[in-house]
Amino acid sequence: MNEFYIDSPNDERIADFIGLSNHKLRQLREKEGGDMAPYFIGEGAIVINRASAVGHELLTLIAGEKFDHSRLVAIPEGCNFFRCSPVVLEAITGRPNLKDPIATFRRPPQNDPDDVTKEAKLTVLTESVQNPTNMGMVMRNAAAFGVDAVLFDPQSCDPLYRRAVRVSMGQVFSVPHAQIRSMPETIINLNRKGIQTVALTPDPKSRTLEAVLKSPCQPLAFIIGSEGHGLTTNSLSVADCTAKIPMQNNVDSLNVATSLAVALYAARARGLK
Amino acid sequence: MNEFYIDSPNDERIADFIGLSNHKLRQLREKEGGDMAPYFIGEGAIVINRASAVGHELLTLIAGEKFDHSRLVAIPEGCNFFRCSPVVLEAITGRPNLKDPIATFRRPPQNDPDDVTKEAKLTVLTESVQNPTNMGMVMRNAAAFGVDAVLFDPQSCDPLYRRAVRVSMGQVFSVPHAQIRSMPETIINLNRKGIQTVALTPDPKSRTLEAVLKSPCQPLAFIIGSEGHGLTTNSLSVADCTAKIPMQNNVDSLNVATSLAVALYAARARGLK
Repeated sequence: MNEFYIDSPNDERIADFIGLSNHKLRQLREKEGGDMAPYFIGEGAIVINRASAVGHELLTLIAGEKFDHSRLVAIPEGCNFFRCSPVVLEAITGRPNLKDPIATFRRPPQNDPDDVTKEAKLTVLTESVQNPTNMGMVMRNAAAFGVDAVLFDPQSCDPLYRRAVRVSMGQVFSVPHAQIRSMPETIINLNRKGIQTVALTPDPKSRTLEAVLKSPCQPLAFIIGSEGHGLTTNSLSVADCTAKIPMQNNVDSLNVATSLAVALYAARARGLK
Repeated sequence: MNEFYIDSPNDERIADFIGLSNHKLRQLREKEGGDMAPYFIGEGAIVINRASAVGHELLTLIAGEKFDHSRLVAIPEGCNFFRCSPVVLEAITGRPNLKDPIATFRRPPQNDPDDVTKEAKLTVLTESVQNPTNMGMVMRNAAAFGVDAVLFDPQSCDPLYRRAVRVSMGQVFSVPHAQIRSMPETIINLNRKGIQTVALTPDPKSRTLEAVLKSPCQPLAFIIGSEGHGLTTNSLSVADCTAKIPMQNNVDSLNVATSLAVALYAARARGLK
């Protein structure tokens, strides 16, 4: 570990971190072709330790003046550790103090959707789940209920985007995930492989989750749609079936990650192995 | 409706709204004794219409220059409607444009916990659920699964706090709720009334939710604890029983509102009427 002290926000060594909470700019920088595309960002000792534990390569680390780096389990020899003055921290996070460190890791190569779903018994597919907080929750819930693979379409938030990683509490690292090109094609492909695809929908005309899960359905994939408009009709029409969570009080829908948690719990309670 | 045009952020008529996204300041102003204590804030046409529909009194309304107020179902005669210039909107929300209107309503009188739980078959108790987003999700989930009453302790976020109302998508108005003084006392009180109190906990030594719900348990109250530390030992020790949601991958917990959604779904699926 090489330790440096940074007291100017213009120091080039911390340029990767500046303006961390500007979502739009960050997502552009981290996209394919952006200057940050080869990296992902992990925030907080828990997240950084979880990333390190599964073998992600820690490249740089920033922290406040008094941070005790023994809270991090493994810091590789080549890692640059930048202790930052309050002015620098403010340029990065908008606040002059930082309780928890922030790190960059080398972004792993993209997974092949066919590889991650090969032996999968429980899969999650996301269509246009754009909100990073929701994507983080989806990954946390997927990990908690032992999902084998998450496939996300190009309109969904990158699960390794900073805020998604943070909200997932680093659980994103324990669930294999891959980007797909087209949701309808992927659903058709999974159906051909004998995976039952269940589209979650608030549509009151749909069968209930309980009814759908009564018939044997293994392996199984749940499909969840965008926060605003739900699943596209193209995706709904090719799924094996649709399922709704019964609701009262004229509530029209649950949060997308919450719906997923309920569906995963119900599938597990039904004895899906 | 009395319509006015406001082009100065210093105009006293919109002082109630200035600095809307400063959580700490807002919560102080809306607390008992604060200048905003007699009111609550609703954001967006959906939320405002839901508040109006259940009889909350709309007092003032702010919107951008081009807002079409026919999107609001009912604007009472005495309501002041302030159209604001971009500079004013920026002082209020941090952004110069505002798609959706913001309103103040008269805060309703506090409910009595004994009244709201009188006939309740399904109750939710929150202890130190401080995060407004989580409280909003708790209320949205409570509404979706037909919870009869939510009781929150003094350390929990006020369900009528702006961000909680927004995240609940106005569903907070469809669930009777009341503040309690002490969680352990309330639990003991509910037990005496024959309501089975089930504390949700990630404790791996606890029985599973599925096992707990197998025995008849009506009426029922779920108790959820703080985002960081869960329920206090005092509350855990007086509850009828504890229940965990089984998790994998060494995930230690789900989000508090997500856990509640799973528990409520499971209770409904078990046929709780």
